[in-house]
Amino acid sequence: MQFLIIVYDEECFQGRHHEFTSECCNVMEFGFETVRSLRVESGAWVGYEHSNYQGHQFVLERGEYPQCDAFGGSNAYHIERMTSFRPISCSNHRECRMTIYERENYLGRKGELSDDYPSLQAMGWCNNEVGSMRVQSGAFVCYQFPGYRGYQYIMECDRHCGEYKNFKEFGSHCQTPQIQSIRRIQQ
Amino acid sequence: MQFLIIVYDEECFQGRHHEFTSECCNVMEFGFETVRSLRVESGAWVGYEHSNYQGHQFVLERGEYPQCDAFGGSNAYHIERMTSFRPISCSNHRECRMTIYERENYLGRKGELSDDYPSLQAMGWCNNEVGSMRVQSGAFVCYQFPGYRGYQYIMECDRHCGEYKNFKEFGSHCQTPQIQSIRRIQQ
Repeated sequence: MQFLIIVYDEECFQGRHHEFTSECCNVMEFGFETVRSLRVESGAWVGYEHSNYQGHQFVLERGEYPQCDAFGGSNAYHIERMTSFRPISCSNHRECRMTIYERENYLGRKGELSDDYPSLQAMGWCNNEVGSMRVQSGAFVCYQFPGYRGYQYIMECDRHCGEYKNFKEFGSHCQTPQIQSIRRIQQ
Repeated sequence: MQFLIIVYDEECFQGRHHEFTSECCNVMEFGFETVRSLRVESGAWVGYEHSNYQGHQFVLERGEYPQCDAFGGSNAYHIERMTSFRPISCSNHRECRMTIYERENYLGRKGELSDDYPSLQAMGWCNNEVGSMRVQSGAFVCYQFPGYRGYQYIMECDRHCGEYKNFKEFGSHCQTPQIQSIRRIQQ
C-alpha cells in the first residue's frame, strides 16, 4: 500500500508545500505554521489538530482539500489547524469488522458492524451513544451525528489492539459517548 | 414508508416543537423563527436553508441533531438556519443507481454508481468535478469534498426525472461542479 499526501501552508494549494509518504508528528518542524490546504494522492490518512497526534482527529481520503473547512474535523467545533497526520495502515483490509457495545467495558447490548451506517438508529441501534467498541479487522470512522457529521473518531484494528473500552479512549478530545454514524475506511 | 420529523426552536430539543409527517415549505408559518434542533424519527429528509426548498440543502437521516451545527449543510459555509424541509420519498428503493458524466449534457467519460464512494478519485474518477448526472433509481447525496464533507446536493430519481444536466441543476445555490464523494440514501 502506497501513501502520499501533499500539504500546503496557503489555501488552494498555494505557498510552501511538502510531500509526505509516512507520518508527520509536527508539521511545524518542516517550517509550516499550519496546513491550509492539502491533496491526498494515495492511501487514507488521519489528521490531528495538535502535534503528536493529539486533539481533534479527522479522516483524509484521496482527493483535494482546498481549505481547512474541507478537512476540519467537525461543524460543531470549527477546526482551523492540522499539525500532525499519519497513514491509516490497516485501512486496506478487504474486510472491516467491529463490535459496538451499549455500555463501557464491552457490556450491554451489542451490534456487529461490517458495512457503512449513516444512521445507527436506522439499523436498529438502541440510542445515540456507543459505550465501548472492538475493531476485529480494518478501520472505521465514527461520527457524533447521523450522516457522517460532527466529531470524528478513527478506530483501527492495529491500534490499542482494536480495543476502545470507554469513550475516553475514542480520542484524546472525546468528551461524550455520542456516536450516531459509522463507516469503513477502505483505501 | 413512514416519515416523521420533530423540530424545535431552541437547541437540545427545547422550546416550541412541532411534528411533521410530510413536507414543510416554510417553518415560520408554524411560529418558528428557525429550527435550532431536530429529531428524525423515521425516513430520510432533506432540509433547506430558505423557504420553498431554496438555498443550501442537507440530508437528514434518522437520529438526533441537538444544534444547527449537527445538520448545517457545510463546513465551508456555516448554515445557521433550516426554513423548509421535505421527505425524500424515493429513498427507500432497494437499489440505487446513477451515472455520472465528466462534462455537462451527459458528455465525456462516465461512471456507473450503485454503492457509497467516500472518494470518487479513489474509485478511478478522473478529476474533482462531475459535469452532469442521471439517477436511474433511488436517491444519492453528492458532496463537494472527499469523506462526505462540504456542500451537499441531494439527487433523486423522481425529481427532475433524475436528470441533472449541468451543475446549476445540482442545487439552487450550486456555484461549482466540484463533487468528490457520493453516497446512497437508503432509509
